[in-house]
Amino acid sequence: MLSTAQRHSSSSKTYGERSEDPDLTPLAQYLLRLIHLKQTNLCVSADVHTTLELLQLAEDVGDYICVLKTHADIIDDFGDKTIRGLNEVSRRKKFLIFEDRKFGDIGSTLQHQYTRGPLAIVKWASIVNAALFPGPAVIPALADAARRAILAHNTSMAELGPPPYFRALLLLAQMSSAGNLFTPEYTQQCLHHARQNKNFVMGFIAQQSLNKEADDNFITMTPGVQLSAGGDSMGQQYNTPQKVIGEQCSDIIIVGRGILAARDRRRAAHEYRKQGWLAYQERVRSARKKR
Amino acid sequence: MLSTAQRHSSSSKTYGERSEDPDLTPLAQYLLRLIHLKQTNLCVSADVHTTLELLQLAEDVGDYICVLKTHADIIDDFGDKTIRGLNEVSRRKKFLIFEDRKFGDIGSTLQHQYTRGPLAIVKWASIVNAALFPGPAVIPALADAARRAILAHNTSMAELGPPPYFRALLLLAQMSSAGNLFTPEYTQQCLHHARQNKNFVMGFIAQQSLNKEADDNFITMTPGVQLSAGGDSMGQQYNTPQKVIGEQCSDIIIVGRGILAARDRRRAAHEYRKQGWLAYQERVRSARKKR
Repeated sequence: MLSTAQRHSSSSKTYGERSEDPDLTPLAQYLLRLIHLKQTNLCVSADVHTTLELLQLAEDVGDYICVLKTHADIIDDFGDKTIRGLNEVSRRKKFLIFEDRKFGDIGSTLQHQYTRGPLAIVKWASIVNAALFPGPAVIPALADAARRAILAHNTSMAELGPPPYFRALLLLAQMSSAGNLFTPEYTQQCLHHARQNKNFVMGFIAQQSLNKEADDNFITMTPGVQLSAGGDSMGQQYNTPQKVIGEQCSDIIIVGRGILAARDRRRAAHEYRKQGWLAYQERVRSARKKR
Repeated sequence: MLSTAQRHSSSSKTYGERSEDPDLTPLAQYLLRLIHLKQTNLCVSADVHTTLELLQLAEDVGDYICVLKTHADIIDDFGDKTIRGLNEVSRRKKFLIFEDRKFGDIGSTLQHQYTRGPLAIVKWASIVNAALFPGPAVIPALADAARRAILAHNTSMAELGPPPYFRALLLLAQMSSAGNLFTPEYTQQCLHHARQNKNFVMGFIAQQSLNKEADDNFITMTPGVQLSAGGDSMGQQYNTPQKVIGEQCSDIIIVGRGILAARDRRRAAHEYRKQGWLAYQERVRSARKKR
C-alpha cells in the first residue's frame, strides 16, 4: 500500500495545487488553501481538562497550526464559554476545529450524539471523525445531520456569521495503537465509501495516504507523531514527521504529548511545524524529480 | 457459532445458578442475582433528550427492567441533577445503569473520557462498553481508571454509599446494523481478551451468546429488539425476544423504540419483560430435557 501511495499523483502535488480540484467538498478545499497559505501541516491534539487550559493552548500554538484537535468530553467545565472562546481564537488565528469523537454507533444515535447534549458537537466543530464498523449508513446519517445544522444556522442575516460554515467528516481508517484490529479489508471499505460520499467525507485518520485512483484527493491526518519514535505504556506508538509526511505521504501530522508536555509549547509547535513542512517540501520535490 | 452457543452449559442454567460462579466479577454476580430475583432480563434504551424525560422513563419502566441503558451525551441538560435523579430511581427500583458510550480510543484518552469532563461517566454508570478495535490495551486502561475511581469514592464513611459500588465493562463484540464490519475474527478477539480480563469484563454486546469453553459465563446483551422483526431507514435491524433469548442464547434484551414509542410505556415494558422471561424459561427447560 505504501509504494502505491508514493506513486499516487497527490504526493507530488502541492497543497495549493490540490486545493484547486473542483470535486473537493468545500471544507477540504478551504483546509488545503489554509495549509498552503499558512505553510503548516501541523494539527495539535488538545488533551487538556479545563476551558482555561484549552484556550491558553490555542493562543500558544494557534499561529503554527492548521487544525486544533479536541476531546470536548474530557474538559471538566466544557460549555458556552469554551465554544465562544474556541470560535474567537480559531477565527483570529485561522485554524479549523476537529472534534476527535470517533463516532461509532447506529445512524439514529449518531445524529443525536452529533447535534444534541452538553457537547452539541455540530455547532462548533467543523470536522469530526467516525469509524465505519457500524456500517456505511453512518456517513449519510452524519451528512444529513450536518446539512440540517447548517440550514438551521443560516436562517437570519444576524446569525449568518463569517463564512465558511461548513462541516465534513474524516473516516477512522487506521489506528497506530499496539494490537489494533483495523484490517486492510476494513481500510479498503473506508476508501470505497469515502469515494461514494465525496461531498461530505474529506479524508481519513490513517497511518498513510490512501489515495490510489487517479482522481483520489483525500486528506490524510496521522496521529501519534513525535520528533523521536517510541511508545507509551498503554499501547500508543509514535512516528516522526519525516516518516509520516515524507515516506507515508500523509498530509497532516497530529501531535499531542510532544507539544503539550514541552516546557515551551510555542517553541515546540514551531519546531513540529518546521519539520512537517520540510518533510512535505522534500517529498514533493523528490517526487517531481522522478517524473 | 450459533449451534455451539446453544450447546454451551450456560444456556441451560438459570440466572440464579450462573450467579453462583465464584469467578464472576462482583458486578456480574450482582446483575445475575438481580435478574433472577426480579425476574426480568429487559434493558430499556433511554434515547431521550432531557433529564425530565429520562427520570420519567426510569419511573415508568423501572419496575420491569434489570438495566437502564443511557446515552448521556444526547441529554441536553445533563448534569448533577440528572445523576442524582438516576441514582435515586435506580436504587429505589433496583436496576443498574449502563452508559452506552462505545469507547473506541487509545488508553490515555479513554481514561480521561471515562472519568472526566461534563459526563464523568465512571461516577454514575456501573456498566460501560468499549470496542476492541484500538487494541487490547483498552481493557486494562479502563479497569485501572475504574479501580482508581472506586478507591476515590470509598475514602470516607460519609461517602461510602450503599454497596455495591462496582464497575464493569462490556466489549462491543458484534452489531446488528446493516453492512456492519465486525468480522468473526474480531468477535473472537473480544472473547479471547474477555477471558484474560474476567475481573473487569462482564460480557458482551453481541447478537448471541459467545460462551464456548466450559467455564465461560459471560453476560450477553443484545440491542435492536422489538416484538416484530424489521428495520429503520438508517441501517438498524430488529430481532424478537424469542429469537434473541430463545434461539441465540443471549441474556438480556435491549429495547429502545419498541417501548419509547409506545403509547403506554409501562404496559410495553411489562410485555417485553414477559416475552423475554418466557423465552428464557422455555430455553432452559428445553435444554434440560435434551440432557
